[in-house]
Amino acid sequence: MSEYLVIGKGLPRKDSILQATGQAEFVQDMTLPRMLFGKTLKSPYAHARIVNINTSKAERLPGVKAVITGRDTPGLKYGPLKNYRDRDLLAIDKVRFIGDEVATVAAIDEDIAEEALELIKVEYEPLPPVLDAAEAMQQEGPRVHDAVEHNIALERHWNFGDVEKGFKKADYVREDRLTTQITKHGYLETHACLADYDSSGKLTVWANSQRLFSIRRDLSRTLGIPYNKIRVIKPHVGGAFGGKEFLSSPWYCASLLAMKTGQPVKMVYTMREDMMCTYRRMPMIYNIKTGVKKDGTLVAQHTRAILDGGAFIVLGPSTLYNIGLAHMIPYRLPNFKLDAYQIYTNKMPHAPQRGHGQVQTHFAIEYQLDMIAEELGLDPAEVRLKNALHTGDVTVNGLRIISSGFSEAIQKATEGTGWKEKRSKPLSNRGIGIGCSGFPCGAREAAQSDTGAVIHLTEEGDVILLMGVSDVGQGCNTIMTQIVAEILGLAVEDITIFTADTETTPFDPGAWASRTTFYAGNAAKRAAEDVRDQLARVAAARLGVTPEDLEFRDKAVSVKGSPERRMSFADAVREAQTSSTGKLVIGTGSYFPPNVEWPDRKTYAGNITGSYSFATQVAEVEVDKETGQVRVVKLTTVGDSGRVLNPLLWEGQVEGGGSMAQGMALYEELHIKDGQVMNPSFMDYRMPTALDAPQMESISIVSNEPEGPFGAKEVGEGIICCSVGAIANAIHNATGVWVKDLPITPEKILKALREKGRS
Amino acid sequence: MSEYLVIGKGLPRKDSILQATGQAEFVQDMTLPRMLFGKTLKSPYAHARIVNINTSKAERLPGVKAVITGRDTPGLKYGPLKNYRDRDLLAIDKVRFIGDEVATVAAIDEDIAEEALELIKVEYEPLPPVLDAAEAMQQEGPRVHDAVEHNIALERHWNFGDVEKGFKKADYVREDRLTTQITKHGYLETHACLADYDSSGKLTVWANSQRLFSIRRDLSRTLGIPYNKIRVIKPHVGGAFGGKEFLSSPWYCASLLAMKTGQPVKMVYTMREDMMCTYRRMPMIYNIKTGVKKDGTLVAQHTRAILDGGAFIVLGPSTLYNIGLAHMIPYRLPNFKLDAYQIYTNKMPHAPQRGHGQVQTHFAIEYQLDMIAEELGLDPAEVRLKNALHTGDVTVNGLRIISSGFSEAIQKATEGTGWKEKRSKPLSNRGIGIGCSGFPCGAREAAQSDTGAVIHLTEEGDVILLMGVSDVGQGCNTIMTQIVAEILGLAVEDITIFTADTETTPFDPGAWASRTTFYAGNAAKRAAEDVRDQLARVAAARLGVTPEDLEFRDKAVSVKGSPERRMSFADAVREAQTSSTGKLVIGTGSYFPPNVEWPDRKTYAGNITGSYSFATQVAEVEVDKETGQVRVVKLTTVGDSGRVLNPLLWEGQVEGGGSMAQGMALYEELHIKDGQVMNPSFMDYRMPTALDAPQMESISIVSNEPEGPFGAKEVGEGIICCSVGAIANAIHNATGVWVKDLPITPEKILKALREKGRS
Repeated sequence: MSEYLVIGKGLPRKDSILQATGQAEFVQDMTLPRMLFGKTLKSPYAHARIVNINTSKAERLPGVKAVITGRDTPGLKYGPLKNYRDRDLLAIDKVRFIGDEVATVAAIDEDIAEEALELIKVEYEPLPPVLDAAEAMQQEGPRVHDAVEHNIALERHWNFGDVEKGFKKADYVREDRLTTQITKHGYLETHACLADYDSSGKLTVWANSQRLFSIRRDLSRTLGIPYNKIRVIKPHVGGAFGGKEFLSSPWYCASLLAMKTGQPVKMVYTMREDMMCTYRRMPMIYNIKTGVKKDGTLVAQHTRAILDGGAFIVLGPSTLYNIGLAHMIPYRLPNFKLDAYQIYTNKMPHAPQRGHGQVQTHFAIEYQLDMIAEELGLDPAEVRLKNALHTGDVTVNGLRIISSGFSEAIQKATEGTGWKEKRSKPLSNRGIGIGCSGFPCGAREAAQSDTGAVIHLTEEGDVILLMGVSDVGQGCNTIMTQIVAEILGLAVEDITIFTADTETTPFDPGAWASRTTFYAGNAAKRAAEDVRDQLARVAAARLGVTPEDLEFRDKAVSVKGSPERRMSFADAVREAQTSSTGKLVIGTGSYFPPNVEWPDRKTYAGNITGSYSFATQVAEVEVDKETGQVRVVKLTTVGDSGRVLNPLLWEGQVEGGGSMAQGMALYEELHIKDGQVMNPSFMDYRMPTALDAPQMESISIVSNEPEGPFGAKEVGEGIICCSVGAIANAIHNATGVWVKDLPITPEKILKALREKGRS
Repeated sequence: MSEYLVIGKGLPRKDSILQATGQAEFVQDMTLPRMLFGKTLKSPYAHARIVNINTSKAERLPGVKAVITGRDTPGLKYGPLKNYRDRDLLAIDKVRFIGDEVATVAAIDEDIAEEALELIKVEYEPLPPVLDAAEAMQQEGPRVHDAVEHNIALERHWNFGDVEKGFKKADYVREDRLTTQITKHGYLETHACLADYDSSGKLTVWANSQRLFSIRRDLSRTLGIPYNKIRVIKPHVGGAFGGKEFLSSPWYCASLLAMKTGQPVKMVYTMREDMMCTYRRMPMIYNIKTGVKKDGTLVAQHTRAILDGGAFIVLGPSTLYNIGLAHMIPYRLPNFKLDAYQIYTNKMPHAPQRGHGQVQTHFAIEYQLDMIAEELGLDPAEVRLKNALHTGDVTVNGLRIISSGFSEAIQKATEGTGWKEKRSKPLSNRGIGIGCSGFPCGAREAAQSDTGAVIHLTEEGDVILLMGVSDVGQGCNTIMTQIVAEILGLAVEDITIFTADTETTPFDPGAWASRTTFYAGNAAKRAAEDVRDQLARVAAARLGVTPEDLEFRDKAVSVKGSPERRMSFADAVREAQTSSTGKLVIGTGSYFPPNVEWPDRKTYAGNITGSYSFATQVAEVEVDKETGQVRVVKLTTVGDSGRVLNPLLWEGQVEGGGSMAQGMALYEELHIKDGQVMNPSFMDYRMPTALDAPQMESISIVSNEPEGPFGAKEVGEGIICCSVGAIANAIHNATGVWVKDLPITPEKILKALREKGRS
């Protein structure tokens, strides 16, 4: 029996009833008196100079309340990183991708706004577009940003240990070129915003963001409004997966239009607009050179990575960092060199997507590891076990592994799936493969990074938890509630949680880098402990013991070992707050892990967060060698997420991550041809459906994590990082071919099989 | 020069721009998708048995979504005091006043809802009504509540010292019967509510209440919903003055209808409905017997008071307490006896109105004091000065006067107005009179009474203050902001205040008993000090001093005496929150004064709050003895409100209180004839307008108040308590007649002059 009563229970999401009954309010559902509708005019060219924009006809159209172009917002730039703001709010001199916003319109209804867009006449002078990142960085040619030579937006170089010496010591060295595709986040709700600007100069924005305090910051920097004149509120959100971290045009254009008209403005992107103009995952070209000992021990790795970032930098520095990071976990690697480049191209910009910069890298590493194992005649699982990071390890770049159940995860994943037996029958229609990953539980950012929690109590003992966390479907509100309920000996029903309003809830950096359970969970725990301690002092006086003698459980405060000496939780609250000596109980908590560093600006060394998760997946697939069709039969995932706080939500993340990985491995690709997105709809952009879902078995390893709340670590992203490689390796096990370019489509498999047949 | 930079400044209200531009959102302005409109059916009888209610036709009317009668809510009672809940949500067996709610309807528009009311057939059996409180308590007759004999809803008896002995020691004893009228609060915005009940069972209520946490409590008790399933939000409110403290039918009927339909329901009372069916001030019949020494020293007072409370008890116990309280301050009184009764009548229920139970009592005492002074040939001002409570006094019922500028107030008021000279010419057309009062700065209630405050800081150093206080026009949000700004060395523009939402703001008991500045102001101060102390520790480390060496002013933290050693406030926040050792700063504070008691249940002794204000007003009037018309020429008010935090708002309260007193003294009366309100509109209910406004001079006495925030005390209610008597006494000074029944109308003056002429 668990020592906990609420922690570890597979409770449904707190918001599930409202969402299931259709009562949950999304931005699209919202309405305000005098509300206008906003639309934006997009560039039809991948790259062109703007010669002239004539908005006079649009402005005269009855029902149009405002037309704004780049001329109205000169100098206003945006971008999530202070030193990398390379994008005009609305294009001024040039358009840089098909979909780049040129003008925005507010009108009394959507049809009039659409009509107004058609009346805006833009004169373009087309320029040759930059479409191939690898080419663009090599040769002199057109530039996306005139001042940036070779279109090299960013470059990062890591150098730990001595790779050259490492390669010399290695028994076997190989080098592979592996490439990954552009994918889209695949959320059901598009970018949407409702903005209201009142006569006191205050901007209120309802944005479906996963990072609302960053939206406040970005709106402040971008629009030049102080923080205290901006309020950002997150209603229910229909998925994000990294695609809703930063300003996109609905958010700032609705704000600009509201400021200009003094009326509320709603802007909701169509799915076509969202898939063409917001953000997408970055594709990578990897050149990985890896040296190992005969037994598979990793000695050195040198990776060159080229990232097609699209027209703007966005969060590129983090993406490039994450490529290095993925080399540091989950394996011991004494010598490592990275040369990573983000290249400007005339394509929609990139942003994080679940497993940001790491899922691609882990795929490349995992796939190559299987090539190495095959060459050396080693069991791929053994190779991974040999190199696994253990508790107490410190990586060459300074990541401190304070808990690792990684080895156990590999063992469980292989033992439970009959790995050895199935591996012994390669090249049958069935294939089995393994993939591994590690993932940070959150990360420091340059600005404020810790999370806060505030707890109020009603006169009757109900608990109200206020947090800035952004639940965008992952269920963090439920997790926070469980944590508080556990500490206070209550049920989740006793806790009301209110979140995600920059004015009324404490700061939270947002839902990114799988931080919420680890950071915000600790903040919630501390706030609950603060309340508990305040109540315990009062209850102890009443019960004639010391606070340490008390325990909070079953909605009561009782003396340990003498459960009959008790008072109900509600009575304890009443005693604490409303008795003659009572005072209002307000609990507060905040958390940032100890010993965490912002990576060194030169070496990129530093322990970026408090703990790291680990995962291993064994994938079993069936390949039809006539058609190249792959059916994923089973995914067995073993995750070290520390203690699992809610198995239902944990499984949801594991299975969701597995499904997203399946899409990335096999089907999904946003095709951009001559700068034009060719498949901007879920009809043409192929994601796995329920019919494609394999059997999924999800097993948790509870490592002894000292820092996470109740020992919890992340689960949201680590899984997808191991899963693409596992599926790809299983396909190789079934077919004997390596397809070094994602996704591994039937065409590519057949082509590889044909080539193999010829050779 | 003041030692403070923001405190003491006459800053305009924070919400004034929004309200002046019409952008402030009141309940009436709000709309939600699928919103219905609610109406209630009222009794046309003052007293009748309900024989039958037939709602079938109304239910069949297209567009009607719900019809609810008392049969649907059996056993659901309401009333603000737990042990005095004597009102059915909707009348079941009987109706008890004209306007008593019998049924409620929700429909898709207001016209259909009105039509549906007409289709509800109610069969009544009329009963003889109880209309005269004094009569009803004497004789056996009809009963408003069948079980309550003589219609005596409540009685309270105080006995301090020994009045009989006191009267024996007195040189002069007189007894007078004085009566006061029914007045209405006169707010511009009627009772209104928008209620939403979602599929998770959560009720959200936007109510224009001055006491929103009490509305949560009352809705919970009344509807049987737990606190954590109720959220009450206060939008902008157009005045309250005590009339919006408790549930009224728009609030609970909209809630009931929302719960039944699953759709949002808005109910906004018409002014006619509001003036007939909500709450009004209680009229009093006083019999006051007072004994004094020759020099005017008060020796004993015995008051018998009868309160016509209408059909329900509401907050009667407090009203009766307040009658006693008004005898305890502002004068020293060694022997006091009170016999107070609240009588049920078939009239609309009563509720507090500015100066709750005290303004009437102070009028009676002040008017009689002038009679005594006249009889004894004393200067009325001298009599008051002789009896004034001083700092350090403890009244016979245990009120502790920790600061009193009362004597100084009397002196200033008389010196500044040429009192002695003007008094020397009585019975001219001009008259001059004096009135005095004392008032508690808040009071303890049985439930939770302290106020909380939470402060968050943005990454850039902006301050967000969260409080549960209810600003209903009095400007407390501005006061709270000033307090925080002063402590943190900022300007009010740097502070964002968010208030009055039971889910996101800390508890506050509401705006009643003039508590907000004293209680909430201290809570805000403590929260700001908490923030200041956290920042000071960080700044001290950076500046190489101890926290005690620092001062916060001019948006900076600097070393006392070395202002060049400084960092900006924003930098201090950044250092505290976002540096490598930073952690989130959350400030909290709460306040309840020390040594405050809930009055003893038998004797009613006990110090009910932390401090008491004092006020003196000198009124100058001109009386046309031909017509009886009174023109108030000048009101000179000298208030000991401790330190005045905002002179502009302080003057607003003084002048507003003076104006309301003028209405009560001269014009206002809600006429109820045979149970029917005869003047339920501002056309017929005569309030003073700008044209009636006298010259007003308002002078502040800054007593040395140790407990209030920066030494502040209340101002909202004390003034009106002294002002009615001052005006009445000035009329006597001009006319020589005593009109012992409020309001002192021209008819009554002429009648008294005629009677005096005859005698």
